[in-house]
Parts: sequence; structure tokens; C-alpha cells
Amino acid sequence: MSNSLNIAMAQLNLLVGDIDGNVEKIIAAAQQARDEFSADIIMFPELAVTSYPPEDLLLRPSLITRVERALAQIGRRVDGITVLVGCPISHENQLFNGAVVIQDGAVIGHYFKHHLPNYQVFDEVRYFTPGNQQSCVFQVNGISLGVTICEDIWFPGPVAGAKDAGAELILNINASPFHMHKQQQRQQVLQQRVAESGLPICYLNLVGGQDELVFDGASMLVDAKGIGFTAPAYKEGIYNLRFEKTSQGVQTVAQALPASAEALSTEAQVYEALKMGLRDYIDKNGFKGIVLGLSGGIDSGLSLAIAADALGPERVEAVMMPFRYTSAMSLEDAELEAENFGVAYQVLPIEPIYEAFMATLEQPFRGTKADKTEENLQARCRGTLLMAISNKKGAIVLTTGNKSEMAVGYATLYGDMVGGYNVLKDVPKSLVFKLAQYRNQVAGYPIIPQRMIDRPPSAELAPGQVDEDSLPPYSELDQILEWYIEQDLSAEAIVAKGFAKDDVYQVVRLVDINEYKRSQAPIGVRVTSRGFGKDRRYPLTFKWPAGD
Amino acid sequence: MSNSLNIAMAQLNLLVGDIDGNVEKIIAAAQQARDEFSADIIMFPELAVTSYPPEDLLLRPSLITRVERALAQIGRRVDGITVLVGCPISHENQLFNGAVVIQDGAVIGHYFKHHLPNYQVFDEVRYFTPGNQQSCVFQVNGISLGVTICEDIWFPGPVAGAKDAGAELILNINASPFHMHKQQQRQQVLQQRVAESGLPICYLNLVGGQDELVFDGASMLVDAKGIGFTAPAYKEGIYNLRFEKTSQGVQTVAQALPASAEALSTEAQVYEALKMGLRDYIDKNGFKGIVLGLSGGIDSGLSLAIAADALGPERVEAVMMPFRYTSAMSLEDAELEAENFGVAYQVLPIEPIYEAFMATLEQPFRGTKADKTEENLQARCRGTLLMAISNKKGAIVLTTGNKSEMAVGYATLYGDMVGGYNVLKDVPKSLVFKLAQYRNQVAGYPIIPQRMIDRPPSAELAPGQVDEDSLPPYSELDQILEWYIEQDLSAEAIVAKGFAKDDVYQVVRLVDINEYKRSQAPIGVRVTSRGFGKDRRYPLTFKWPAGD
Repeated sequence: MSNSLNIAMAQLNLLVGDIDGNVEKIIAAAQQARDEFSADIIMFPELAVTSYPPEDLLLRPSLITRVERALAQIGRRVDGITVLVGCPISHENQLFNGAVVIQDGAVIGHYFKHHLPNYQVFDEVRYFTPGNQQSCVFQVNGISLGVTICEDIWFPGPVAGAKDAGAELILNINASPFHMHKQQQRQQVLQQRVAESGLPICYLNLVGGQDELVFDGASMLVDAKGIGFTAPAYKEGIYNLRFEKTSQGVQTVAQALPASAEALSTEAQVYEALKMGLRDYIDKNGFKGIVLGLSGGIDSGLSLAIAADALGPERVEAVMMPFRYTSAMSLEDAELEAENFGVAYQVLPIEPIYEAFMATLEQPFRGTKADKTEENLQARCRGTLLMAISNKKGAIVLTTGNKSEMAVGYATLYGDMVGGYNVLKDVPKSLVFKLAQYRNQVAGYPIIPQRMIDRPPSAELAPGQVDEDSLPPYSELDQILEWYIEQDLSAEAIVAKGFAKDDVYQVVRLVDINEYKRSQAPIGVRVTSRGFGKDRRYPLTFKWPAGD
Repeated sequence: MSNSLNIAMAQLNLLVGDIDGNVEKIIAAAQQARDEFSADIIMFPELAVTSYPPEDLLLRPSLITRVERALAQIGRRVDGITVLVGCPISHENQLFNGAVVIQDGAVIGHYFKHHLPNYQVFDEVRYFTPGNQQSCVFQVNGISLGVTICEDIWFPGPVAGAKDAGAELILNINASPFHMHKQQQRQQVLQQRVAESGLPICYLNLVGGQDELVFDGASMLVDAKGIGFTAPAYKEGIYNLRFEKTSQGVQTVAQALPASAEALSTEAQVYEALKMGLRDYIDKNGFKGIVLGLSGGIDSGLSLAIAADALGPERVEAVMMPFRYTSAMSLEDAELEAENFGVAYQVLPIEPIYEAFMATLEQPFRGTKADKTEENLQARCRGTLLMAISNKKGAIVLTTGNKSEMAVGYATLYGDMVGGYNVLKDVPKSLVFKLAQYRNQVAGYPIIPQRMIDRPPSAELAPGQVDEDSLPPYSELDQILEWYIEQDLSAEAIVAKGFAKDDVYQVVRLVDINEYKRSQAPIGVRVTSRGFGKDRRYPLTFKWPAGD
């Protein structure tokens, strides 16, 4: 047996709960890695068999039987290569987030994840028991490999334990969701573990969209020389790494490393995450495509671009629904953008519908004054039209609001909030502008009409209405929101950073009182370190001094 | 010092996050218990200072300062009585679900909850570290009292530990949400703890509605003789219990026990829970009242009854929105019921609005056939009308769907699903009928018109439409749903219990594919052991063999 080792990292896009389908992909990848790369071992992501996160499917009665059948399948159909695969494991009536090592048809080792994340979007303690602090070290080609799962790598213990048990190289399997700047955090922590242990680490991540989460892939090899290899983000692939045992320990064969993917700008990362999140939601659920309301503003303009890029223009249908406050500029820009992206486009004025509602409401509204009711009604006429088209054609409605709006409640429930997926839900307005500019740079021309980017944002629900009339400028708003929501700063601390007290307290108060709207909002891709999904769990009913 | 002890149990209705308000209630109750009942000690519920569950408010930067200030207030303003109160406690940079004992202005003891529930609706591990296994035993009038918190009583350890540390009586403070048959479970477990330890237990529960949860109170004293006292459910109150130290240990003074509340039937319990959940949602959030669509069917009919009973008829407004498929019976019964309950009632036909939508959609729908789209459109015309009235008048829309419908997706998003609160959300249709009959028995006449109860359920969205045309009979449907949702049985196991295979698989498949609808539904009171709220966390995107 030679003292070199060929490791394949299978950065796959799997489907939650689809054990049969996932196992077919796992088996095909193992056979391919063996045949094309002569890999000795292939590693698959955390909970690859069920994909991640399976949530309450983990409580289904057939879970364990189905997983055990899947592992037996892998054992029966894969030979000539060792398989490391993540899966739930039942042991002494407890469920573990585990991994098994399958060699020549038999399970030769297993590992139970030690550190279970139960913060932010994670709920692992709901399902799993923490691992028993035992390492899993096994040999392939005379080289000892230690297994860790995701969160385990963020603490010194599990790698140190594996090293004590003889590991010469660490295999770390992940289902680590994207948010901005996450990759740098991962790199830092991996380099720290390498510095502590002296062992190279193969960091494999899941790829693909799952509801509000996008797993970005970007799997890595990190060793004493630094980050030796980074796989492309947002793409499936099998990546092959070679190691040799030398007197200095197990070393990367540097000349055999595949070329690393080019690092993406933050805008490119977010844009790709949004595309992947949307595409996987649509395709994994079997929808035909999307329909969206195109208002002439930048939010729906960017949403259209992402949808057309993610699904292809033939699966996207845009509807402009003008009313008396819709400007000529909005009509022109909407039509131009639809043409630029080559998507179906139609104009359905809402005036007659709105008037029919107002006529019906004449008696109950007698003696009252116009207020937000009439603005919301316009949005609801539009939402109902979009839903009718969606119902008739089997395309889901794409919701187009951004995070700044969702934060302060500048959105109409059952109006512009209708839809199955809200691609910009976690994208602050300032980033919406940057993403539009990024997309136009990629196109080499203003494929998203420049005027959409340059005009002052307006919901056009009243004459001459402009968002910044009633809110601080978006640059300021977004900074306040980031500190308040993502960093848990108090209003006082935000004021101390130099913002006007009135602005800060207005914003945090709006965030607090709009939880009821967010509780009925469609899901959307999480791209910040705290989105408005499973990440932030506020009561609807509460009393708390705003910003305290 | 005498060897008798006077304990007050403060079964209070508190408001999540309202530390200042809660502390005022705590102080007032302590003073009252001292002055009116000569109580030596008063106990308050789990996390009484913040109320329960505070969710991510526990992550707010001012939490600990505010709680500490609150405890200092209690210490400063309460004397002559010992106070046991639940609150979050920070210790060595970890947060605990704790309780403190305050005597003569000083904290003389503290306890950290050992067992943290992190299943069903509970997420305590997200916030808290499990207690350090130390008991908290303190003396009042020469009697040693041991503290436990909620979940602790469901395991033998904490009571046994307190006894080992010298406790002669157990004080167990709770925030235990209601579901049907929960009280029997509590009684059983308390009796078991008494049997193991020989110690009497004062079981104090929170009371009140908080979003989807209703805490039913029903605090108890359990000792070797059985359940010595049960406080009224769904009511605030301070209950006074006397104990004496004898050669046989600490004993209840039986003749001093207050009279136990009469046990309620299951229907009465659920009806009271629904009333309390709705009333507290409306009042704690400061809404004026509710508006609801009254269709002439039993769901909206029962919802109206609960709303009128909970809020008073003057805060309830009913709107009948007939269309061409609305029967004369529906119009008559809706009007009759509104009159019976004395609530405002108006009729707003949707025909002109529906026609305006269809005219606008004429071109996009050309060449297509009528399908569910047109049915959904009717529901959305109604939803939009209700929301307009809600916006104009400041009353929230009460959603009227039941659990059976939410389970199989027989509801229209942004149509009959609009609203801020869905009082029947967790009430299966079969129980809807029973509750209506219960309410009529209480009234002594069919205050909910008998025909509403007797007619075959229909959404009246198409000519001659009846629910049971496309679903199994409700009695059967609800049994399948209970086994599938509440008991996690497989479809196969349900078929084995004697139901038709086609029916079972149709139902479980409908449950699985309608998660997206439920994800945007308003909240509603949980009354079963698994509601469609925080209780059941399914992915929207997944593939799993239906019913497996």
C-alpha cells in the first residue's frame, strides 16, 4: 500500500428529505471519483443523506429505517473507494448528527457531532444529542484520517481529540450557510485549527438553496502553508486533492492541487446567492416559473434581473399595473427593462378594480378621510391580480420588497407582500443599488435602466410620494438597521455613533412594531448575519422600551 | 417563630417584555398577600419578570440591567414577606432561566432551572444554559422550602436533590401552556413526584394569552393525600395555602384550603382558552377590536361567538360579503347570528369588484378555462374588503379558518386567510361543531343558529359545492389528521387502524404540500398537543414519501 492518498470532495446540491435521490447522487459521485480521479476516499457534506436542514422531518417515523436502507445501498453499490457521508444516526434511543465511514460494503467507523449549533437559524438541539466526545479516526492507504462535523471545527476540542487519537489529516464535513463575509470567518477559524494542530484540513461544504438558506460551497483545503485550494462557490463539483506521508507528516501534493476559484466580490457573491436561492426554490418545488409586478422602481427591477438570470427569461413574466400615480418614467422603464431581459410583459391598469372597491366601501367609509387605507388598497389590487395570474398559469409570484422595507414595515400585507419567494428579503436598499450597478457592469450597459437606479425611491401610492420624505436617507437607515438588527446595539449606542436621536428612535420603533407583518411574509434568501427568518424570533405581542 | 407557614400563589397574567409593568403587578400582589392573607411567602411564575416566552428579547443588550433593576425594586418596596420570583439570571457570562428568593430587601437564594425544554413550542436552549444541578433550599418560619422550575418537575432529579438538601416542601413555578388533556398529565406527574419524595408540592402556573400560547393557570397543591387544591383556570388570582410542621413532616392545613375550582369539560376549557388567547392578543397589543367576514358557515359563526364573548359585542364588527353562490340560508343565518350577539353587521356584495378583476384579466386569461383561480379570486375580494375596513377603523381582521382546513390547505392565501389572529387555527372541524353546541347550551338557545351547525359545510365558491365532495367526512379527516400530525403515525399505520388507503394518502399528501400556505398564516391559539405554529417546523422545500 502506497503512502499517498487521493481525496475527493463532493460539493453536491442535494434535496431535503429526498433520501432516494440523494443516495443516487452520492453513489454516482463515488463511482465517478473512483473511476475518473482514482480517488481513495470521497467525502460528502454534513447530513448529506437527508440534506440540511431536514427540520421536523427528523421526527418522522420512517427516518431511521430509510437512512439505514440508504447506507446499505451505498455499501452494496460502491466498492474500490472509501466513503465518508453525513447522516442522522440513532444510537441507544438517541438521535445524533453523525457521519459514517463505509469501506468494502461495511460501516467501519462512525462519528457523532460534538458541538450542536442552536442559535441564529440553527435548531440542532431540538433533534440531536451532542456527541459522546469520542473521536473517529480511520486509516486509508496507511494514513490516519480524523472526522469532524461543521460546528466542531469552530472549537479546538474535536480536532485536538482526533489528533490525540492519531489523526494525521482532518476531514471536516459541513452544511454551512452563506452570509456576507462568512467565508473570511471560515478561513480564519480553519487556519487557527491548523496552527493549533499542525494537521491539514479538508473542509467540504454543501452547495444549493434550501428555503431561506443558501449553502455556498467554496470548499477548502487549508494546511500549514495557508489556503491551498478553494472550490468554486455556488456550483456543484467533485474536487480531487492529493496527499503524501513524509517525515514531516501528511503533506499536500501542491503541484496536484486543482486551480482555486477566483474570489468573488461581495456583490457577486450576494448576486449568485440570490440566484441560487431562487432557482433552487423554484426548481426543487417544481414550479413552472415566476410572475412579478414590475413597478418601474429598483426593487422590482433588480428582482426581475435576478429571476431572468436564475431561470431564463422564458420562465419569467412581468406585469406592470399602473394607477393614477404611476409616472410615465415608471411605465417606460418597466417596458424597457422587460425588453432588455427578453421577458414577457403586459400592462394591466388597476383603476377600474380600485374604483369598484371604493364604490363598495362608499357607505362604510362615509365621513372618513383618505389615509393609508387607500394606498394599501392599490397594493392589494395589484397583489390579487398577480395571484390570479399565478393561479391560472402555475408560476409563483416573486415578491420584490427589500430588507430595509421589511424592517420598518414599508410594505402592504396581502399587497406587495404577496408571493411565494422574496428574493431581496434580506438585501438592504443600499445593497439593492450596488447589485443593480454590479449587474449593469456585467452586462456592459444599463440592462437595468439607469433611471431606475438614479430616481428617488417612491412607492407611487400618492401624488409626489418619495420614501425619504418619511424615513431617514437609505444610507443612514441601513446603517441604523445593521447595528440594531445584526449587531444588537441599543438605540443609545447607535446615537452615540453620531446619528440623530429622532431618526434612530423612529427606526427602531418601526422595527419593533412591524413584527406582525414579517410573521406573514414569504421566505427569501438570507445574505446577512441576521435575516428576518428563523434567525430572529421575536414575539408579536410584547412591550419593551424601543431600542433598549 | 411559629412552625406554620402561609404561602400565597400569585397566578398572574403578565406581559412579555414589560418588565416595569410586571414588576408593579408583582409588588402589588406581594403587598396584598402580606396584608390580606398574612402570607409569609409569595411565589410568582417562571420568568415572571419578563413573562414567558420572551424569545429573542432575551438577546437585547439591556436585558440583564433591566432585570437587576427590577429585582432591586422588589427588594426595596416589599417587606414583611418573602418573595420567590422567576427571572433570567446572568452568571459567569451565561444566561440561566432562574428564580430568586428575596427577603428583607436582599436576595437570599437563587436557583437555575436544570431541565430546559427544547421541543414542541419550546426553544430554551437557544437562550439558556442548563442549571448547575445545585438545589435552592431556604427557610421561612423554620420550614425548609425547595425551589424547582417548570420542566424540572417532569424528572425525578430536582425534587430529589431539593429533598436531599433538606427541603420539606417544594415550590414549583411554571409557565406551562395549555393544550387539551394537559392538566391530567400535570396531575399525574405531580402525584408521582409526591409519591417519590413524600413532600407536598405547590405548583404555580402563569395565566394569560401570549401569541399562540395560552397559559391556563389551574395552579395546584398536591400532597400525599392527592390534589388538595386547584385554582380556577383562565383567571388571575392570589391563592393562599397553609402548612404546619408536624412529626410527620410539613402538612397541609386541610381546613384552611380555599375551595377548588370546578373542573371544566374539555369544550369549556378550549372555549375559555380561545377567548383568553384572542382577548389578550387584542388587548395586549392595543387594538380597538376585530372585524370578521361572516359567511353563514359554522367557522365564522363560532369565531364571532368567541370574539363577542371575549371582547364584548361593541368591539366586534361582522361583514357579510355575498356573491352569486351565496345561499339565502347563509344570508339569513349570518344576519340572525349578528343580531343574537348584538354586533354591528353590514352586507357588502363582491360582484362588482369580482367583475372588475375579471374584466382586467380578460386578455391574459383568454383561451383558458375556469378553475380554482376564480374561486380564490372571490376569497381575495373579500379579504381585501376586510383589510380596507380594518385599516380605516383600526380593528384587526379575525381569520376564521379551522385546523382541518389549515392542515389540508382548504383556504385561500390573501383571501380567507387574511387577518391578524386566527382563533380556530388549532381547532379541528369536529371540535368546531362541539364548541358551537357547547356555546348554545350555555346560552340555553341556539344563539349560533342551529342551521349553521347542521348544514353540510361548504365554502360556497362554486355552485352546489360541499367540502365533503373532495375530502373524507370531517370525523374521519380529523382522526387521520390527529394521528398524522399530533402522533407522528405513518400513513401505513393509520390505514392499519381501519381507514381507506386512498383517503389516508390523499390527506397526508395534502398536509405535506401545503406547508407554504401555513408559513404565511396568521397565528392562532394552540389547543392541541401539536399546533401549526412553533410546534411543527417543516421545510417548505422537501421531498419525502407521503405519510412515511
